[in-house]
Amino acid sequence: MGMSSNSCDYFLDVLASKAPTPGGGGAAAMGGAIGMALSNMVGNLTVGKKKYAAVEDEVKELLEEGSKIIERLKALVDEDAEAFAPLAKAYGLPKNTPEEAAHKEKTLEECSKVALSVPLEIMRQAFRGIKIHERMGEIGSLLAISDVGCGVVFLKAALQSAYLNVLINLGAIRDQNFLDQVNKEMTQLLEDGSRIADKTLDLVIGKIKK
Amino acid sequence: MGMSSNSCDYFLDVLASKAPTPGGGGAAAMGGAIGMALSNMVGNLTVGKKKYAAVEDEVKELLEEGSKIIERLKALVDEDAEAFAPLAKAYGLPKNTPEEAAHKEKTLEECSKVALSVPLEIMRQAFRGIKIHERMGEIGSLLAISDVGCGVVFLKAALQSAYLNVLINLGAIRDQNFLDQVNKEMTQLLEDGSRIADKTLDLVIGKIKK
Repeated sequence: MGMSSNSCDYFLDVLASKAPTPGGGGAAAMGGAIGMALSNMVGNLTVGKKKYAAVEDEVKELLEEGSKIIERLKALVDEDAEAFAPLAKAYGLPKNTPEEAAHKEKTLEECSKVALSVPLEIMRQAFRGIKIHERMGEIGSLLAISDVGCGVVFLKAALQSAYLNVLINLGAIRDQNFLDQVNKEMTQLLEDGSRIADKTLDLVIGKIKK
Repeated sequence: MGMSSNSCDYFLDVLASKAPTPGGGGAAAMGGAIGMALSNMVGNLTVGKKKYAAVEDEVKELLEEGSKIIERLKALVDEDAEAFAPLAKAYGLPKNTPEEAAHKEKTLEECSKVALSVPLEIMRQAFRGIKIHERMGEIGSLLAISDVGCGVVFLKAALQSAYLNVLINLGAIRDQNFLDQVNKEMTQLLEDGSRIADKTLDLVIGKIKK
């Protein structure tokens, strides 16, 4: 059973404890799932309403895509814990001799590559979720427009949190090709995602104030 | 038993459903609790470490304050649902006669005042949580510095989400004194809280990149 099958109380307790996981990565995934659920709430309040009949098919597609992202983010809470375990172990390796030090450095680099693959995937999912909110803010029920804004700020928080978790794992990596590739992808996801999230929040505030 | 005693899966399911609550307000409170838990994780990784002995007492105070905020935010998930129920009922009141219309308008105004008191309180708690992260980012264990950044972006998201939920309830209120008072408080919490959160995130990114 995955972490999300536990109570919210339990999740918050282990998150706040000094247990190595869940940490910022798990929080990013779970917090992102909360954000994603809000766009789906708006979608569910939109379908079946005469006023929104013209966009019903598209809203249903957004709902389906949103549900997939929620499931993926819940699974990523567990994947983050699994990918972090070998890295936590590698930190404890000895480095008393030059051979040990070289082995530790190499192991840390390999484990860091694995560990950062999960928050990078969380960033991709958060970006997809932000794009869905952008569209839901345009076509979803006006009665629940504030929920689109709430959802998108939580997905932006997930994007930023996951970014920090990629960033902190880059320090142990020497492979320049790998670094360049990850840097390029994460910067683009962060910049484009943040821009679209901010634009969507502004749109929502504008619609509320009108 | 409160909502947080349910599984994360259940919370996400009802959040995504068209059930009126939990919605953006409940998500703000629960997402804020996730953020707050991260500062406490950093605190728990800081106490008992020789390197941080000089700040141990202050970190313990931050931890205690953080735990109170987590409990308060969890309770606010339930309070938001309770405060929203009478408003949802008021939307259904008839307005076929001038008397009915006047009664509905008055009831909506009263219920909106009650409903917005909860997200306003979520904003206050999120602001307190952001201030704790600001300090934890300065004195907490460097090994977990990225988690301070993750925590603070989720508390900023909670602050913004709660703001949207106050804002959307202002539309039905004519009481100008009340409006002025709420507008003043929420604007200050949003602006100051966002500024401190952004500053803390920048500090964290700077420490990671160093």
